[in-house]
Amino acid sequence: MLNLVELGKSAKIAARQLATFNTQQKNNALLAIAEELEKQSDDVLKQNALDIKDGEAEGLSKAILDRLLLTKKRVECMAADVRKVAELPDPVGKNISETEMYNGMKLIKRRVPIGVLGVIYEARPNVTIDVATLCLKTGNAVILRGGKETFRSNIALVNVIQTALENAGCPKNAVQYIDNPDRKYVTELLQLHEYVDMIIPRGGAGLHKLCIEQSFIPVITGGIGICHIFVDESADLTRAVDVVENAKVQRPSVCNALDTLLVHKNVAEKFLPEVADRLAESEVELRAEKKAFKILENSNALVIPAGEDDFDREWLALILGVKVVDGIDEAITHIHEHSSEHSDSILTQDDANAEKFINEVNSAAVYLNASTRFTDGGEFGLGAEVAVSTQKLHARGPMGLEELTTYKWIGIGDGHIRE
Amino acid sequence: MLNLVELGKSAKIAARQLATFNTQQKNNALLAIAEELEKQSDDVLKQNALDIKDGEAEGLSKAILDRLLLTKKRVECMAADVRKVAELPDPVGKNISETEMYNGMKLIKRRVPIGVLGVIYEARPNVTIDVATLCLKTGNAVILRGGKETFRSNIALVNVIQTALENAGCPKNAVQYIDNPDRKYVTELLQLHEYVDMIIPRGGAGLHKLCIEQSFIPVITGGIGICHIFVDESADLTRAVDVVENAKVQRPSVCNALDTLLVHKNVAEKFLPEVADRLAESEVELRAEKKAFKILENSNALVIPAGEDDFDREWLALILGVKVVDGIDEAITHIHEHSSEHSDSILTQDDANAEKFINEVNSAAVYLNASTRFTDGGEFGLGAEVAVSTQKLHARGPMGLEELTTYKWIGIGDGHIRE
Repeated sequence: MLNLVELGKSAKIAARQLATFNTQQKNNALLAIAEELEKQSDDVLKQNALDIKDGEAEGLSKAILDRLLLTKKRVECMAADVRKVAELPDPVGKNISETEMYNGMKLIKRRVPIGVLGVIYEARPNVTIDVATLCLKTGNAVILRGGKETFRSNIALVNVIQTALENAGCPKNAVQYIDNPDRKYVTELLQLHEYVDMIIPRGGAGLHKLCIEQSFIPVITGGIGICHIFVDESADLTRAVDVVENAKVQRPSVCNALDTLLVHKNVAEKFLPEVADRLAESEVELRAEKKAFKILENSNALVIPAGEDDFDREWLALILGVKVVDGIDEAITHIHEHSSEHSDSILTQDDANAEKFINEVNSAAVYLNASTRFTDGGEFGLGAEVAVSTQKLHARGPMGLEELTTYKWIGIGDGHIRE
Repeated sequence: MLNLVELGKSAKIAARQLATFNTQQKNNALLAIAEELEKQSDDVLKQNALDIKDGEAEGLSKAILDRLLLTKKRVECMAADVRKVAELPDPVGKNISETEMYNGMKLIKRRVPIGVLGVIYEARPNVTIDVATLCLKTGNAVILRGGKETFRSNIALVNVIQTALENAGCPKNAVQYIDNPDRKYVTELLQLHEYVDMIIPRGGAGLHKLCIEQSFIPVITGGIGICHIFVDESADLTRAVDVVENAKVQRPSVCNALDTLLVHKNVAEKFLPEVADRLAESEVELRAEKKAFKILENSNALVIPAGEDDFDREWLALILGVKVVDGIDEAITHIHEHSSEHSDSILTQDDANAEKFINEVNSAAVYLNASTRFTDGGEFGLGAEVAVSTQKLHARGPMGLEELTTYKWIGIGDGHIRE
């Protein structure tokens, strides 16, 4: 019988142990996981095959089934990724600052693990390994709750992790899984604030809404990107075509892909047909508001009039909203109204407009003369990515290892008292 | 008719304007508030007198009435405090890091305002000015909700602020007040996640619980300190008496005051009577568990047996829980079970025990050979204090101006696309 309070308690105890481990001990645990993963590869694949069979029976699409599928090669990649995490620098234990107080006491602000994290995710089973290893590296315990489509795969992977943890002398409760697909356990997890310090949902808008509304625990929302590029009248229009194409086409299914193109009215007549031609090569469908539609209707592009909500959608597909604006003010107002504050970009040669856009567009990542596709832990040099936050507290944008830590203050005296 | 959605919308618009203000503009607004406060001092005092009259009629205690009371002198102090905030360095706009990406793009991590804060507080009316000025300094808009006991005083103070903001060319909606004491508006505020980015409750455990359970917005919990000192067997016992006295007696009504004294069994017979004698001078009541009681029962101190929940109470009064422990492990276990993770201290001359305590006690502030009373923004050199956080996300311990900010990523390219 699954008891989430017990799960939470044991996670907190494990977290306290983990917090005392040094980098070497944590890395040993990671290497043990990689090894165990290779060792139990066949079992994992067997369980995954059962998940896939169920998925086929339930009529899941080929694209989704491919996301759920594990292969020998994919398991090897997972093991290789775990070894890479072991090689990353450990942020825990670093002193963020070290000062002397007015009374001679030493005051240290030191990076420490957060404690217990709750991660709720959908689809791909590699997230299980991914999240668990990043949490372990930073000395955090984690309670995982994956999607029902890969239930058996996830259980198998958590078994791998727990076996490895025990072999490496780590508390196996550092990584636990909610092994009952009943949704009520998600609600219970979200209310475990005595034991869980942070919730990271990785999934669609519905999951985020559920977490925001039900959680007693701080939630890192994010991963949903309604991203904009504004092509100013001074933009280098030749390069702008490349940037827009890259942002839209290179990988349309991800959160930092472009959703809406805003074009200054003074260059719209010239730029829109050019970019439409280029996007037509990748069969991008354009959803154009009135003015843009008028310019584009006789082009080669697949263009249809924009619907009412088309500027509030994260497309995740080869579709692009297009709008002509009077200038930077209208562009910024549009972004304030429709952006999910993930990634927005201005293409301009005008310094004042560049500065204005950078200052006034308050998204997690704001770009000047660059594709929105760069918002990514790897691209930013963080070494890893747990999630992309679009909320304001604790972390914004790509979250790496450091964002899985907090700090504590350490005051060192010699019998000091406050006057 | 109070409409919280409208309040939230206008706060968000004001926050966007404020975010574009430079330090000088924000400081001018602060100086205008100080001036207006002096100018409208009589009006503020008149409204406060009405609050006090109601409070007396409702039978509020003298201590509470004194907390609510404003005097000419206190208003002058408030104005002086506002001028001090104007002098503090502005964290907004500072680049936290500036790197070059692998592809030559410049990547800046820049400190920016959070946006809109919601602050729910009880009692003292100076919090209205205090919180509003710290928010303005950091470019944030704020929605305030004070206690009903100072309803009129708070409204008068918000009028002062809004008049000053308008005079200084700032959006007056940067500081708004929920001017209806109905509790349902607290719930509405807590669900305004589309417009409010962070909730800071400043009050008792009930308020914090309400915020945790009802809020859709990240809540900074804190301000409740069940604080411990562990006197190890190697402690300098003479100094230990001073430290314990300071932590308990200097200002017993605050959150960083001592609540529980843990003493190593090998020094309990010697230390407990000494410290009890000293605490008796300030008429501290001791709530002692069995072993401690046995040692203390014939002393001069006012000592009674500890009740069941006495180690889970923040006393905020001249009362102290006392317990004898077998050693550092039992001390740490006790702290894990009973501490609110605010401030805990070890007094020891043993380096290994010092390190163990610092590593394993995961409180916002951990001390070695020092009083717990140092956990304070002013003492830590932060220049100001909005709250003391005992949760893990975003900020821990005293929150100064920097903790009222977040960051954004700025990527500067020259037509860069992702390969």
